[in-house]
Amino acid sequence: MERRTDLALEAKELFGEEIKGVSLEEENKEDIKITRLKIKNKQASHKLNKEMGTYITMEFPPLTDYFREADDKLKAVAEEIKRLLPVNGLVMVAGLGNPEITPDALGPKCADKILATRHIKGDVAKATGLGHLRPVAVVSTGVTGKTGIETGEYLLSIIKKIKPNAIIAVDALASRRLSRLGCTLQISNTGISPGAGVGNNRTKLTADTLGVPVIGIGVPTVVEASTMALDLFDTDDEEFSHQLRERVNPKGRQMVVTPKEVDLLINRAAELIALSVNCALHPDLSVGDLLSLIY
Amino acid sequence: MERRTDLALEAKELFGEEIKGVSLEEENKEDIKITRLKIKNKQASHKLNKEMGTYITMEFPPLTDYFREADDKLKAVAEEIKRLLPVNGLVMVAGLGNPEITPDALGPKCADKILATRHIKGDVAKATGLGHLRPVAVVSTGVTGKTGIETGEYLLSIIKKIKPNAIIAVDALASRRLSRLGCTLQISNTGISPGAGVGNNRTKLTADTLGVPVIGIGVPTVVEASTMALDLFDTDDEEFSHQLRERVNPKGRQMVVTPKEVDLLINRAAELIALSVNCALHPDLSVGDLLSLIY
Amino acid sequence: MERRTDLALEAKELFGEEIKGVSLEEENKEDIKITRLKIKNKQASHKLNKEMGTYITMEFPPLTDYFREADDKLKAVAEEIKRLLPVNGLVMVAGLGNPEITPDALGPKCADKILATRHIKGDVAKATGLGHLRPVAVVSTGVTGKTGIETGEYLLSIIKKIKPNAIIAVDALASRRLSRLGCTLQISNTGISPGAGVGNNRTKLTADTLGVPVIGIGVPTVVEASTMALDLFDTDDEEFSHQLRERVNPKGRQMVVTPKEVDLLINRAAELIALSVNCALHPDLSVGDLLSLIY
Amino acid sequence: MERRTDLALEAKELFGEEIKGVSLEEENKEDIKITRLKIKNKQASHKLNKEMGTYITMEFPPLTDYFREADDKLKAVAEEIKRLLPVNGLVMVAGLGNPEITPDALGPKCADKILATRHIKGDVAKATGLGHLRPVAVVSTGVTGKTGIETGEYLLSIIKKIKPNAIIAVDALASRRLSRLGCTLQISNTGISPGAGVGNNRTKLTADTLGVPVIGIGVPTVVEASTMALDLFDTDDEEFSHQLRERVNPKGRQMVVTPKEVDLLINRAAELIALSVNCALHPDLSVGDLLSLIY
Repeated sequence: MERRTDLALEAKELFGEEIKGVSLEEENKEDIKITRLKIKNKQASHKLNKEMGTYITMEFPPLTDYFREADDKLKAVAEEIKRLLPVNGLVMVAGLGNPEITPDALGPKCADKILATRHIKGDVAKATGLGHLRPVAVVSTGVTGKTGIETGEYLLSIIKKIKPNAIIAVDALASRRLSRLGCTLQISNTGISPGAGVGNNRTKLTADTLGVPVIGIGVPTVVEASTMALDLFDTDDEEFSHQLRERVNPKGRQMVVTPKEVDLLINRAAELIALSVNCALHPDLSVGDLLSLIY
Repeated sequence: MERRTDLALEAKELFGEEIKGVSLEEENKEDIKITRLKIKNKQASHKLNKEMGTYITMEFPPLTDYFREADDKLKAVAEEIKRLLPVNGLVMVAGLGNPEITPDALGPKCADKILATRHIKGDVAKATGLGHLRPVAVVSTGVTGKTGIETGEYLLSIIKKIKPNAIIAVDALASRRLSRLGCTLQISNTGISPGAGVGNNRTKLTADTLGVPVIGIGVPTVVEASTMALDLFDTDDEEFSHQLRERVNPKGRQMVVTPKEVDLLINRAAELIALSVNCALHPDLSVGDLLSLIY
Repeated sequence: MERRTDLALEAKELFGEEIKGVSLEEENKEDIKITRLKIKNKQASHKLNKEMGTYITMEFPPLTDYFREADDKLKAVAEEIKRLLPVNGLVMVAGLGNPEITPDALGPKCADKILATRHIKGDVAKATGLGHLRPVAVVSTGVTGKTGIETGEYLLSIIKKIKPNAIIAVDALASRRLSRLGCTLQISNTGISPGAGVGNNRTKLTADTLGVPVIGIGVPTVVEASTMALDLFDTDDEEFSHQLRERVNPKGRQMVVTPKEVDLLINRAAELIALSVNCALHPDLSVGDLLSLIY
Repeated sequence: MERRTDLALEAKELFGEEIKGVSLEEENKEDIKITRLKIKNKQASHKLNKEMGTYITMEFPPLTDYFREADDKLKAVAEEIKRLLPVNGLVMVAGLGNPEITPDALGPKCADKILATRHIKGDVAKATGLGHLRPVAVVSTGVTGKTGIETGEYLLSIIKKIKPNAIIAVDALASRRLSRLGCTLQISNTGISPGAGVGNNRTKLTADTLGVPVIGIGVPTVVEASTMALDLFDTDDEEFSHQLRERVNPKGRQMVVTPKEVDLLINRAAELIALSVNCALHPDLSVGDLLSLIY
């Protein structure tokens, strides 16, 4: 029985043994643990069931901490995002997921707080003094069940029109551990994979399918019930683990859960990502300036 | 001094005298007053500052009435919409406006309750039994200030991809009379005009610019302050009217107001339009079926 | 290791053996399974850790079903509530829980849709024609962390002032089974017990502490992580069960989870309870009348 | 014809001539204009139709400004509030108004962001380190139409139980000028008067009726339509003014309007008041500390 996770770091952890073609670097910045994992070849990609590329995992202290004031954290995240971004040109930020399903609302909540600047030209530029900012467009794609349009189709049609240099796609993820929800951030240059996320988009959103680099940013907000149950009994006792896998109620596979505090978790994660992305896109603006432009 | 209105009926009313090339038909259905106004030539279009085409105005009793139960009303509205729709093929419903500004949220609130069916194929069609329904796609365009993308550009890019036979664009409108807000519905085959609506889109959304027929549906939710003030002192005394126009504080032109009860007004109008559009698109489904599919 | 549940039916189930002083009656009404459990003496109350009294459990088909149209279900629930209510006099409906925490928002969301009538006197009674309705007051107590006031203190102070004949307290509950969330309803004449509910009020809300009969109505919306894990491996193998209890990660006790679809679940349960309570309090009004009075 | 206003400053302005028993002091602090108006005797109170007492009006630059960052503004407001508060003892903050009607939601939105501390004792005090803070309780009374309980009754019953030293009542107000909405703050030691506010409470909330000092804090969010119309044509020409009053459509008296941007206006005003009240109650905490405790 497989344990579902959208975090490359957890996929490696679950695989257990060393894998050729996977490199791992760890760093601690204040109270954030940063892991840079690279999947370098097809075999490794196949073993971990993750696209080839770079996955940066940032583990924060749990929810209790307040993000808004933590300029250092924003800057640490912004720095990682900036490294994956092209130096200039239009960036399109896409919030994926269903705004009406709280654990899936990370993308749209985040998109609501991204500063759009692509339209600031001519008179608007003069009036606002924002004419010099990097051009940014923002879309919330909604979900196929509500729009009748696949997320990939949706993005592709806007991309053809506005021709961004890169896309930042923000989505809620699934983790194998309850304790990671809301306080782990994954940033990757591999886009978003099918089956990933809370809403289970069926289309791959990658440079291959969309024609431009896609930076995927996500925070796990859900766990599959059976994955969580196995995690709670975590053990080195091979035989017991085997017994567990045998006995788990198969219905647990389809049930997906989120912590009771999901509203808080989503609000904070959306704000952390939105502010970090804004900082990465407009390094000249202070956090204070950004806050007053967004709210 | 001009009085701003997005209702063709009010534009005619304000013009006063007869206009060649404008026809008007009135009908009463239960407690709804229906007016069908046609602007037939360019001169008339220029005089009224409205596109050539058909404008159906439905005047309902004020807010006090409860829409949901009123199946007759839904059906009366659905019938008018159906007459303007192509007989078959994909229809795209577009909710225009800013969901965070209550009086401008009519479009997105309405879009949230439109049944999307374009994606219901294969397994989904079998599982849901909805495979036979007319294909419908739904988008909420947001506003340029939040997306960096003009509404026209946004719609055009999706249209190129999914190729609908017609578009239904839902938007909040401005009226000249406070008493009309929330209880007058305008349906037209002329799309949405620049400067119309609460958010003042700059692009024309018509068959000309979008390449497909555009049915515009709107409910007035705001009045310009000075327009409202002149309306409150309405008089046949030419001299007094002239005095009023002279003395009005020019700042009033830029101030736009909405009734205190705007939340109620928007919720009810969005539900009336959404249910009517759903009925017009899927005439085989009962209101009860539609409600259980949407909620 | 104990498994936490607020449902008396589950407490009995978990206890296993027969208990003297507990009676159980089952009935099927259409697709609802109704169980009437009575705890008749102190020993039984102690064994099950539930107050003496009557607990009616109504098990509905899962979420997929749409409540609003289901007048039969509303009436079945209303009938159970009516049996526990005094025949006449003021009833106070109290929504418990935190409106900002989705899985805890059942009480306040429900209270928002209860028809308040206590103030309808004199002119208002004439104008609305509602003067003949049973007097009802509605409060949302909020949570101690946000008000600084214990729920018991809060209710007691209002009770002293308005002197209701009975209280209906609505709260979100914890279950031992994920599959019960959102589709099981418990109605009891024993009020709300300390430690029950999602927010874990510390005060007992019973006839003893509040001085008036308290009808508790709840729907489970959360499961403790470890309780859920044990449930997923459910087994008759005593030894394996024992092993499980030994090995469970103690942190799982403090983690509480809710299904990904919690928003949908809460909205539907709140509407079902609100409409049922309204029906029980005003048996002369039809569901259609109630809907038009509430929205 | 009377023009309705809840601002004492505007009442005086409208009265025109000097009134014995009314004193007025003006001060400018940065870009805030502060006016301290005292109504000292019954005759003056009767003429202005306002309770005897002190009314502090703070006029801010319009909406365009961002409140959160403006620590100076918060402190200026906090200082005025602090002067009217008793030096120590429990303070109860009451948010008045209907959270579902945006222009009336100032009170409840503000209450949501007040730090409640009354319950922080024993273990909680140790765990949070907040045991030394001034005790504060927070209630949102809702509106009579939704609760069946008059606001005065509601407050009185809680007051009897928790015995505060003072009450701070926050409510949305009506102004005579559209330009004042959202950017004028009135703080008074006279409580809230009948007929004031957006929701038109019928009970007086004053030291007389509640038995404790009541500090009223409000921001105008609505204007009566006819009052606004007269304001737009404002003139010294006595005859024209008289004509206007004669001709105004009497229906305008019952219609109450709010600016299109009401959501923004309410959010910002609620945050300004909440942060200022928190600062006034806990002068030892920094704005940063307060933000991290509230969110």
